[in-house]
Amino acid sequence: MSLAERILAGDVRAAARLMRFIDDGLDCATPELKALYPHTGKAFILGITGPPGAGKSTLTDKIIAAYRQRGKRVAVVAIDPTSPFSGGAILGDRIRMNRHATDEGVFIRSLGTRGHLGGLSRSTVDVVNVFDAMGWDLVIVETVGVGQDEVEIVRNAHTSLVVMVPGLGDDIQAIKAGILEIGDVFVVNKADRPDADRAVRDLATMIEMNHPDEGEWWPSVMRTVAQKGEGIEELVEKIEEHRRFLAESGQLKHFEENKSALRFEELLRDQLFRQVRKRISDSGNLARTIEAIARREQDPYSAVEEIVALHFQK
Amino acid sequence: MSLAERILAGDVRAAARLMRFIDDGLDCATPELKALYPHTGKAFILGITGPPGAGKSTLTDKIIAAYRQRGKRVAVVAIDPTSPFSGGAILGDRIRMNRHATDEGVFIRSLGTRGHLGGLSRSTVDVVNVFDAMGWDLVIVETVGVGQDEVEIVRNAHTSLVVMVPGLGDDIQAIKAGILEIGDVFVVNKADRPDADRAVRDLATMIEMNHPDEGEWWPSVMRTVAQKGEGIEELVEKIEEHRRFLAESGQLKHFEENKSALRFEELLRDQLFRQVRKRISDSGNLARTIEAIARREQDPYSAVEEIVALHFQK
Repeated sequence: MSLAERILAGDVRAAARLMRFIDDGLDCATPELKALYPHTGKAFILGITGPPGAGKSTLTDKIIAAYRQRGKRVAVVAIDPTSPFSGGAILGDRIRMNRHATDEGVFIRSLGTRGHLGGLSRSTVDVVNVFDAMGWDLVIVETVGVGQDEVEIVRNAHTSLVVMVPGLGDDIQAIKAGILEIGDVFVVNKADRPDADRAVRDLATMIEMNHPDEGEWWPSVMRTVAQKGEGIEELVEKIEEHRRFLAESGQLKHFEENKSALRFEELLRDQLFRQVRKRISDSGNLARTIEAIARREQDPYSAVEEIVALHFQK
Repeated sequence: MSLAERILAGDVRAAARLMRFIDDGLDCATPELKALYPHTGKAFILGITGPPGAGKSTLTDKIIAAYRQRGKRVAVVAIDPTSPFSGGAILGDRIRMNRHATDEGVFIRSLGTRGHLGGLSRSTVDVVNVFDAMGWDLVIVETVGVGQDEVEIVRNAHTSLVVMVPGLGDDIQAIKAGILEIGDVFVVNKADRPDADRAVRDLATMIEMNHPDEGEWWPSVMRTVAQKGEGIEELVEKIEEHRRFLAESGQLKHFEENKSALRFEELLRDQLFRQVRKRISDSGNLARTIEAIARREQDPYSAVEEIVALHFQK
């Protein structure tokens, strides 16, 4: 039996193995992913992002518990911003120690950011697809950060949860601007802190300034104290409300097309580059070109133009 | 006179115009960048990164002042994680209000992150090159974040400053793992907080575990209270020490080659994709393919393989 067949039969160890191939960027993952793809499209994908220190891990833990109580099987992909050189799984280790470790209805997988050529969002989507094809009800993607990577990753989720925390100072302005459009539901965690009201108010103002169009989803700002389990039920109810909205408004179809376009372009970009890079690397042209650029004897723009012209079908 | 000629003659408004072209991803920037490229390679490039709330803007402000006192002309590229859709320049506005606004020896430019096809690090390098070709002594690149984007951006700096702050909680583990290799100098800012000693100790331990090889640079952990101007002189002295180390150890040549390789590959990736995307988009194949992927009638991996095979010179 192929890995894909074993995965479709529910073999968790086969899934873990394929995810390792994906994480390591191995080509042998591709035939398996091809075979799994027709079985995807059923799981609900929840993205959770926010700046470091917002308490995302604790909140994720409580959300898992809430969905387990509703009888859902929950898979988690934790994006682990470990070294681009040495690898590692600090987040993974941390999360695995939690109380879901012995629950067969929870599967947590951490994913490194070891400078993947195809970008982190590529491997994330692949891993989510494995869970999806296996029949997991809910797939949570948890990231640490508020940069372009996170925007890309969270764009592939049905519902995006943005976790904020009171008292981030001036940087809050930059963060809010960057993530405002990707948030379907905003959470101010640690809402028992004195400056929580201000954080909620600021977020609400930003949403209002952004005024979604008629018929579009209007993001809410929720409050939680994840450590004490406060506000979790209301939050999960809001997530479910957004999920229903997607289905009933017809936006789900639009979402699937957008996601497919992003996916296709990402893979195309990656494959084209790998093909051409291999050719010029084999011919010895790569090293010569890079040396010339480093010495300022050739500019990189002209060098690339020449190579593109050389390798393309007219 | 071309924009590039005006820029080489020191015309600041021409430079601002070209930077706007770069930020908007316009092709008309390319001939100018080609003309400027042979004049680059003289400026010292300092990258500053760290999590939100670490006080990077205040610290950058003090570093600018310190270099101005040493008679250096300082350009700043502030990466602004604004909306991928609506653009904006929140960081830029914030920084421009500071005390350097009337100093002709300081030029601050904020750069949006509007989902550039070629990636943010591409436009950052281009803008840095403009400043470099113009003859600015020091170019500071300031980012907000600790993700893969920041790693890429900071890799193009001669010296990378990583600014941390006491009390980030559990997330500190993930951050430290991600940025440890990119930091040449670490700073614990807000070092008058009670938990500063622990942050310094933790960073020092991480560096020790990473033990640089013989002859390599050993990163230091510095303390600052940027608000009060404390520790700035020592920090700038450490930055200068790293700069001298690069030159004297011969690692500068290695750095230039690495940077050229990254740059070349980034541009190649971008150009290949744009060429092929235009072709399939013009032929109407793009829309059909994406719809088939969204319906799970075709998997994205096979779709991309077919297109790559179709467009390549055998």
